[in-house]
Amino acid sequence: MLSKNEIKLINSLSQKKYREVHQLFIVEGKKSILEFLDSHMELHHLYSTSDDFDVEKNKHSLITEQELKKASSLKTPNTCIALFRISKSKTIDFSKLVLALDDVRDPGNLGTIIRLCDWFGVEHLVCSKATVDCYNPKVVQATMGSLARVSVHYTDLAAFLGSSNVPIFGAFMDGANIYSHILPKQGILVMGNEANGISQEVASSIKKRVGIPQFGDAKSAESLNVATATAIMLSEFARRSIGT
Amino acid sequence: MLSKNEIKLINSLSQKKYREVHQLFIVEGKKSILEFLDSHMELHHLYSTSDDFDVEKNKHSLITEQELKKASSLKTPNTCIALFRISKSKTIDFSKLVLALDDVRDPGNLGTIIRLCDWFGVEHLVCSKATVDCYNPKVVQATMGSLARVSVHYTDLAAFLGSSNVPIFGAFMDGANIYSHILPKQGILVMGNEANGISQEVASSIKKRVGIPQFGDAKSAESLNVATATAIMLSEFARRSIGT
Repeated sequence: MLSKNEIKLINSLSQKKYREVHQLFIVEGKKSILEFLDSHMELHHLYSTSDDFDVEKNKHSLITEQELKKASSLKTPNTCIALFRISKSKTIDFSKLVLALDDVRDPGNLGTIIRLCDWFGVEHLVCSKATVDCYNPKVVQATMGSLARVSVHYTDLAAFLGSSNVPIFGAFMDGANIYSHILPKQGILVMGNEANGISQEVASSIKKRVGIPQFGDAKSAESLNVATATAIMLSEFARRSIGT
Repeated sequence: MLSKNEIKLINSLSQKKYREVHQLFIVEGKKSILEFLDSHMELHHLYSTSDDFDVEKNKHSLITEQELKKASSLKTPNTCIALFRISKSKTIDFSKLVLALDDVRDPGNLGTIIRLCDWFGVEHLVCSKATVDCYNPKVVQATMGSLARVSVHYTDLAAFLGSSNVPIFGAFMDGANIYSHILPKQGILVMGNEANGISQEVASSIKKRVGIPQFGDAKSAESLNVATATAIMLSEFARRSIGT
C-alpha cells in the first residue's frame, strides 16, 4: 500500500527544497538500492512490487505496479523505489587526492564524475554551491550506486581553496601538459563549469594549471566534455600514484 | 519560407531509413553548422531565422521562428537548421590508431566518443552494424561539430578485424593494466557495448586485452561508462605516442 501522503512525499523529493526539508532522497532500481543498502547510508523506507529484500519489516511496503508508476519519476519505472536519509558530511581526508567542481550544472555529468571518483578511489568530492545537487534523482541514477561510497560536500569553493594547505591543481584549456607535469598523491584537483570553465574567483587560488594536450589537426575539437576531461585527469593522478 | 514538403523531409530525417533514402542528415545550431560548413561536408540546404551565413543563395532560406519550431527536433530550437549530404567513406588509414565500437547503443555515448576521436587525432572510427547511427540527430548534436572531422564506418566488425594486419587491442574488465602495457602508434582499439562489453565473436579476433585498473576499496564501482573508459584508453595511446 502506498498512501496519498507517501506519493506526495516521494514526488516532492524531486525538488531540492523538499529534500532539504525532509533530509531524504530517492533511489530507484534494484541494483542501485542494493548498493545503498550495502553502504553506510540509512534507509528511511523501501517500496517494492516484490518481497525479495532483506530489510526491517517496518521499513518495507509491498506496492502494486500502478502505485509505483505514481511514485516514480522514470518513464519506465523499475520494480522498486527507496528513500534514504541524506547523510552528514564526513571530515575531508586530505591525505589523498580530493576532487573539486566549480559549478558543474548537468546531472549526467555530475553522476558520471561521482562514478569516476568511486573507480579511482577519490573519497571526497567538494562542490561549489551552484553545482547541481548530488541528491537530484537524475544524478543518483547516473552514479549507478557510486554515490553510496563517495562523500559529496557543498561549500563556498573559493573560501575552501583559500584555506587549504595542499597543492591545488586546476584544469584549463591552456594548462601545462598533464602527462609530463609532476602530480603528487595529495592535492585538490578543480574542474570547471561546462560552458565557462573555472571561474576567476576560484582560479585565483589555483597555483598549478594543467591541461590535456590536443592531438591531430590544429583545427580540431574545441574542448572536451567535463566528465571525459575528469576521467583523463583522474586517470593521470591514479597512474602516477602507482608509479607507472 | 519553409514548404510543407520541406518540413516533411526534415522531420523524416530523424529516422535512419529516410536518411539512407535521401543520403542527408540534420545539423542544428549555429556553432555546429559552422563547423560542418568549414569541413569537407557538402551542404544540401540551410534554413535560418537570420541572414548571417556565408553560403550560396540557392542553398539558403530565411524562415520564421514558427517554421523553425515545426522543423526542429529540439525542445528549445536554435536559430538555424541545416541538411548536409552523407559523405562517402574515406579509405581507412592504418598508419595511426583506429578506434572500433562493438554495438555502442547510446547516442550520447557515440557523440562523446566521436568528440574524443577528434581531440586525440583518431581519424577513423569503425562501428559494428548494430552501433547507433552517427547521423542520428542526437549523436550529431553530441559531437559538437566533431563529426565533420572524424570518418565513421559501419561494417561487419568481426570480419573487419579478422582481415586486418595491425595489432588489435580490446577493452576488458579483466584486461592487462593499460598504464604499463606497451601501446604502439598503429593498431585498432575495440570498445564494447554499454551492458555486455565486447561480444564473443569480436573478442576472438582480439589478441591484446587491456583494462583500466580500479583504485580505492575493492567494493567499488562495477564498471566505467564506455565514453569515460574510451577517454582514458585514447588518452593512454596518445600519451605514449608522444613518449611521455
